[in-house]
Amino acid sequence: MKSFLTLQSVEEVLAHLRSFAPLPEERIPLDEAAGRCLAHAFTAPADLPGFDRSTVDGYAVRARDVFGAQEGSPALLECVGDCPMGRAPEFSLEEGQTARILTGGMLPSGADCVVMVEYSRPAGNALVELARTQAPGDNVILHDDDAPAGAELLPAGRRLRPEDIGLLAAFGVREVTVRRPARVAILSTGDEVLPIDEEPRPGQVRDVNAYTLAALCREAGARPQRAGLVRDDPEALREAVVRLAAEADIVAVSGGSSAGMRDHTVNVFTSLPGSELLTHGVSISPGKPFILARAPRGEGEVCLMGLPGHVTSALICARVFLTPLIRQLQGDTQPKKQALLPARLTRSIASAQGRRDYIRVRLRPCAAEGADWEAEPVVKASGLMTGMCEADALLVCPENREGYAAGEMVCVEML
Amino acid sequence: MKSFLTLQSVEEVLAHLRSFAPLPEERIPLDEAAGRCLAHAFTAPADLPGFDRSTVDGYAVRARDVFGAQEGSPALLECVGDCPMGRAPEFSLEEGQTARILTGGMLPSGADCVVMVEYSRPAGNALVELARTQAPGDNVILHDDDAPAGAELLPAGRRLRPEDIGLLAAFGVREVTVRRPARVAILSTGDEVLPIDEEPRPGQVRDVNAYTLAALCREAGARPQRAGLVRDDPEALREAVVRLAAEADIVAVSGGSSAGMRDHTVNVFTSLPGSELLTHGVSISPGKPFILARAPRGEGEVCLMGLPGHVTSALICARVFLTPLIRQLQGDTQPKKQALLPARLTRSIASAQGRRDYIRVRLRPCAAEGADWEAEPVVKASGLMTGMCEADALLVCPENREGYAAGEMVCVEML
Repeated sequence: MKSFLTLQSVEEVLAHLRSFAPLPEERIPLDEAAGRCLAHAFTAPADLPGFDRSTVDGYAVRARDVFGAQEGSPALLECVGDCPMGRAPEFSLEEGQTARILTGGMLPSGADCVVMVEYSRPAGNALVELARTQAPGDNVILHDDDAPAGAELLPAGRRLRPEDIGLLAAFGVREVTVRRPARVAILSTGDEVLPIDEEPRPGQVRDVNAYTLAALCREAGARPQRAGLVRDDPEALREAVVRLAAEADIVAVSGGSSAGMRDHTVNVFTSLPGSELLTHGVSISPGKPFILARAPRGEGEVCLMGLPGHVTSALICARVFLTPLIRQLQGDTQPKKQALLPARLTRSIASAQGRRDYIRVRLRPCAAEGADWEAEPVVKASGLMTGMCEADALLVCPENREGYAAGEMVCVEML
Repeated sequence: MKSFLTLQSVEEVLAHLRSFAPLPEERIPLDEAAGRCLAHAFTAPADLPGFDRSTVDGYAVRARDVFGAQEGSPALLECVGDCPMGRAPEFSLEEGQTARILTGGMLPSGADCVVMVEYSRPAGNALVELARTQAPGDNVILHDDDAPAGAELLPAGRRLRPEDIGLLAAFGVREVTVRRPARVAILSTGDEVLPIDEEPRPGQVRDVNAYTLAALCREAGARPQRAGLVRDDPEALREAVVRLAAEADIVAVSGGSSAGMRDHTVNVFTSLPGSELLTHGVSISPGKPFILARAPRGEGEVCLMGLPGHVTSALICARVFLTPLIRQLQGDTQPKKQALLPARLTRSIASAQGRRDYIRVRLRPCAAEGADWEAEPVVKASGLMTGMCEADALLVCPENREGYAAGEMVCVEML
């Protein structure tokens, strides 16, 4: 018999995901830290840059010595020398004095701004004319302009971008403490499914989900393990889940495609000692039979996830739930700001109210006024792999909409 | 003296980048292929799935045997057995016969569609009532529905996504031919710059660019090599560039921060035998002094790139030019569809006409009607690292605009 599920909303499932604790910390070299998440906030250990620096090539001066200077009535100053690069000048500026300085050079004491070389003219006998009035601080980075010692520069949970790596490098940080990557065991079920290196007979298909899901996990920075195949048999499934749950942070089971096998998966998950079933069925298309559970392990826990068997459903469902779970475990606590591409929809799309639909769309340059792209829905069954490959993006139709009309402008998530 | 450059537009430089030939091919395991670019189009070697498959749990039938069936006047058929999973059924359906089938099961010969189990009722003596009319092909994936043998499924230059990996897995592909990753040698110049593991004295700063640029290269799938520091000395720079150009596909020199050092960089690039200077100066902010050149090497060539010294300028300039160059070399020939985030600008921004400006903005949730986010420009000198870290996104102000007004809706590129 068909079992009737109590469907949760996508937001309810995402809230369950946020209830999982982040993984333990580890220290890694700065070089490998891009994309990883800081376990602790980073606070400036010193002023940066640590000295007053010129941002231009020119002349270091005291602002009051060039006050009112301009083309036609320049200030005349005595040039006492060149500021060296990479060292503190061994002189200081007295009233009426200046010194040549290059971009990045350290200001001599006494100087408080720099006049660009374009406004200078040699006037003989170590004299120079400067035809520009400046305020203190002009063309200068002060010693703590980039960061004062003690300022919190990066919050805990920050996913490190190249710029953050640079900021850490600027302070000489060579190792950072981050959350370790999630270990995801990927298990496929189904009597008709074969490892990809075997030749299918009629009635058999290769294990596509193990590959799509592993690639998706890697994209999210996790460490996937393709844990093979089990037959549509509750005992075999239970044995495999128990074995994998001893090591993995997430056990993701895809398929079986039949309703009976999905029941097996729920039964196996709930049979683990101390387990809690969080979700069995979501108001989402594709992906309705999604299952989420947790089970204690040592001082932590393991997350158990049941994904649909159909290749497209499994992958979309994993994008919606598995990727955010990996981010959560890996300590990525910053809210995701999803960039979208506006496009004109070519055909009407119907959706059920109360359900969130993920509609695959192909993008093409658009000739019409007011849109750069048009989005053509991909009409292929969710058991077909090519429909997912043909899609460039996903159009999300939220719970409170019954669809979109042809010609409407929509915003799509790039795949 | 200040040298006056003939500035190229950003589009002119991007056109130069497209003139570089893709790197040689290599064969890699499918498992490592996500994010890599196919060297050749992929054509289906066989029909997929290769047999007619049910997409539901139910009863395989000939459509004409349930023609007109409905609740109240069901068709009565003889059930001849169960279709096995993963094997071809050993029976075929005659007129008036049906067989139980599960999702993913292979249809017996004679059957052309499936009635969902919800519309069935056992009627004793191996008879079953089916209360649903169906057309041929209903609830079935035909043997070549996913892909017919010989169809081009993925074009050459396709950057492989998880779904593409799955499609290749579906055909049993275990190795793919892709373009090899670009080797990028990153060289920093400047007498004031120190390796990050040394303690700066007053006047010295650590080599931030080597780290930001290496992280950016890794993000693009390239293999960066931090090639160290050279002093502001043309001979030392020439020696280093010649040495690195013998191995790397791209030599990226950042700094020196002074105008004189930038001239050294151009002179060194143009001194290589057979070299061609493509760009010296771009109408872009930040990043105006950008340099691009090529030099022959063996049967190929090396790309020489001069980036600004300021940390923010170097990184933005690398995002605009180095990342696309890496994509080009790595054979990524698909046009990039840039998803953007709409946001309301908090302050007016002025830009020079004829120049493309990349303005760093911080994003905050927006209380105002009609916008989810507000974009606050980051006002920090381009020599400061923290300004880049504080930014969530870049606002691109194109050549034909003089700026944006406070309150205007803009679209930003997420960092």
